Amino acid sequence: MARGRAHGGTRGPRHSIAAPLPALEGEEDLLAAIREAATTPLLLVLEGVQDPRNLGSCFRTASGAGATALLAPRKASCGITDTVRDVSCGGVADVPFLQVGNLGQTLRRLREEGLRLVGTADRAELSLFESDLTGPTALILGSEGWGLRRKTAELCDETVSLPMAGRVDCLNVSVSAGIALYEAVRQRTIGPSANPTPD
Amino acid sequence: MARGRAHGGTRGPRHSIAAPLPALEGEEDLLAAIREAATTPLLLVLEGVQDPRNLGSCFRTASGAGATALLAPRKASCGITDTVRDVSCGGVADVPFLQVGNLGQTLRRLREEGLRLVGTADRAELSLFESDLTGPTALILGSEGWGLRRKTAELCDETVSLPMAGRVDCLNVSVSAGIALYEAVRQRTIGPSANPTPD
Repeated sequence: MARGRAHGGTRGPRHSIAAPLPALEGEEDLLAAIREAATTPLLLVLEGVQDPRNLGSCFRTASGAGATALLAPRKASCGITDTVRDVSCGGVADVPFLQVGNLGQTLRRLREEGLRLVGTADRAELSLFESDLTGPTALILGSEGWGLRRKTAELCDETVSLPMAGRVDCLNVSVSAGIALYEAVRQRTIGPSANPTPD
Repeated sequence: MARGRAHGGTRGPRHSIAAPLPALEGEEDLLAAIREAATTPLLLVLEGVQDPRNLGSCFRTASGAGATALLAPRKASCGITDTVRDVSCGGVADVPFLQVGNLGQTLRRLREEGLRLVGTADRAELSLFESDLTGPTALILGSEGWGLRRKTAELCDETVSLPMAGRVDCLNVSVSAGIALYEAVRQRTIGPSANPTPD
């Protein structure tokens, strides 16, 4: 089954299946990608992922979910290495990537652009599944060790958590990213969860 | 916030937070764990995961999702190693684990026990999000390289896939497991997706 890209490229004509997408060169490119996206924008923002296997896995899942772009800070964050490429299984060539000097500033620009900033934080009272991800959304995840920084959490329109039934505190960041991205996919195809009724 | 186990142990009195759970010693132990589970049984079945990092990540997520047990075949499948323990962040001590000689036979027993067998397969037409995971369920995932074996897929009550928007064929097995386990959690707390209406 041929699988075309479900979302728009960054600039110029639609890219062929085989051609790698151009890297985003700055915030303006990112905003252009958001404005030109063929589907409702969905950004994955990784605030401090340092393990190349985690970053690669996030690229892989972001491709599957049709994410518009992947955004990270330049400092204290993994860039694209051979390991990232390998683990991404083609995701690096599929999802536009931008690293910025001042993540907070870029997040404010994204909000001005109409994106809802949804951060994941272990202690957030609202469940991911109660959040409406059907509109233009940036999903923001913290680092493997420290989670979302307080300053970043304060910038968010909403922080959400995943229910943790057992003794493990939190999930691997690439697994959390996958659950959050695909909850957005689910809501956008099937609709948000209405009237939560715990059993 | 203290987080108790949301599901029952395998035998005897409820274990304290600190004590590791006993390993399951055979199919009868697994069936006992299912019958004694405090919540609706949710099994994670990994048919051929060989990367200890993937297995560890699955244990971590299975703990978070409150899975009743993790089941795998003895052959062509990773057992519990130091890497699995490390990556699981405590999940190995939290989720009962059983490796069996004949996975097909055990799956048939699980079905007789009332579990619905839901396999994930890249080419399945039904989306994970259209599957009802609110009842007793075994989620079955294939190996990293080959996916679900045909014989196993034929045993399933239903096979489901995740929508893949980009050029990547499928997700990392531990990410797929996370999305499937937490879709079960979502449905069990909020309800299954009714009347899918693609946008």
